[in-house]
Amino acid sequence: MKIAYDGSAYSGFQIQKSAKTVEGELTNAIHELTGEEVGLIGGSRTDSGVHALCNIAVFDTESQIPGEKIKYALNSFLPEDIRIMDSYDTDNDFHPRHVNTKKTYEYTIINSRIEIPTERLYSHHVYGDLNVEAMNSASKSFIGEHDFAAFCAAGAQVTSTVRTIYDISVTSSPISRGTGNRIVIRVSGNGFLYNMVRIIAGTLLEVGRGSIKPERVSDIIESKQRKEAGPTAPACGLTLVNYEFL
Amino acid sequence: MKIAYDGSAYSGFQIQKSAKTVEGELTNAIHELTGEEVGLIGGSRTDSGVHALCNIAVFDTESQIPGEKIKYALNSFLPEDIRIMDSYDTDNDFHPRHVNTKKTYEYTIINSRIEIPTERLYSHHVYGDLNVEAMNSASKSFIGEHDFAAFCAAGAQVTSTVRTIYDISVTSSPISRGTGNRIVIRVSGNGFLYNMVRIIAGTLLEVGRGSIKPERVSDIIESKQRKEAGPTAPACGLTLVNYEFL
Repeated sequence: MKIAYDGSAYSGFQIQKSAKTVEGELTNAIHELTGEEVGLIGGSRTDSGVHALCNIAVFDTESQIPGEKIKYALNSFLPEDIRIMDSYDTDNDFHPRHVNTKKTYEYTIINSRIEIPTERLYSHHVYGDLNVEAMNSASKSFIGEHDFAAFCAAGAQVTSTVRTIYDISVTSSPISRGTGNRIVIRVSGNGFLYNMVRIIAGTLLEVGRGSIKPERVSDIIESKQRKEAGPTAPACGLTLVNYEFL
Repeated sequence: MKIAYDGSAYSGFQIQKSAKTVEGELTNAIHELTGEEVGLIGGSRTDSGVHALCNIAVFDTESQIPGEKIKYALNSFLPEDIRIMDSYDTDNDFHPRHVNTKKTYEYTIINSRIEIPTERLYSHHVYGDLNVEAMNSASKSFIGEHDFAAFCAAGAQVTSTVRTIYDISVTSSPISRGTGNRIVIRVSGNGFLYNMVRIIAGTLLEVGRGSIKPERVSDIIESKQRKEAGPTAPACGLTLVNYEFL
């Protein structure tokens, strides 16, 4: 299944006993539809408050409903802030995290003097002027295979902090209705560490404000020290926009 | 004051005793700032669930805070879904509804097979294909001075149902993230009757679906019969985007 959700009301993707999660809503809906208690395999365990236009989840079922019809059937049991955008049958041994993938995230910043209420749920508001050219130039240091230990939240348990960024860009466009700019950091890679995109965004925001020089970003990567990078930018600005199997 | 708000949580602009309203939040914030119980004069009494990027409100105060600083002071007392975008001093006798104005509304439709969760609060979702060219062509019949009685909710108390539409257009663009189109009906006029823009939108949607022929729209206007026009489109798709004094 390809899943879109507004993460505002959820404590992230991954199921938890005493909190509302996207995975919890999905397993409830599958139970309502099929009577089965399934275990989902999720593509990306997005954090509390993070949005998705295309996350992935796979499950085993005895149901005879054809894969491509599952989306319509499940959507009728799901809350309106979660939608199955697409669904299909896969091979029995398919595992979304055991194949090569390209994940694309967008981090959206509204750069304006006063926050725009209808933008607040899906963006991070920044008051002061940002140098988008410097941010875009600095962002190119992330491209390629690197040890991203400096861009991983403390306490994350991973065997390797090496990841490959395929592409990254920082673009700005005027807000269509109102005064200010929408700045989008778009980054794609084979995988991301815990909070990695939000720490990249927080670091590029410091570049935009002038407190980190663009050319220092490659030194920060090389340092492998979390304290050298910028702060973790707020969750609401982050959206998982695409998830492709290579 | 020029005011933007996310109308999702409010029972419209106009103050009510036992419901959360935009005007109620504004008068509370003014009371917190100045200690005064003020009566606001609002520009447009938007309905429950309707959004604004630029509504107008005027009030009298003994406060010595300069007009242009009022926005920053009030924003610190307001909930984050209401923002004063601009503020300034006016003449003592200024009344926003007693001067010539140009109000501009946008009605946003997401035309896609499956609703997109992060668009749902600020648009109306339509599943079936819409003929945007027919909608745009039909919309031109609204331009000019007409008796819009057919486009006024039953029970509205007004002395005249004559209004002037300055301009209207229906445009479509692909959704930047996802599959489908964003269709925007943009209409400006000297004033609008109760539910008028939503009935215009509901009528143009019937044109888009093919159940009302574009050339019939001028007959519907001439009929002055509410029952001849299409249904009232949902509130969440509507945003008051501009309010100008001519």
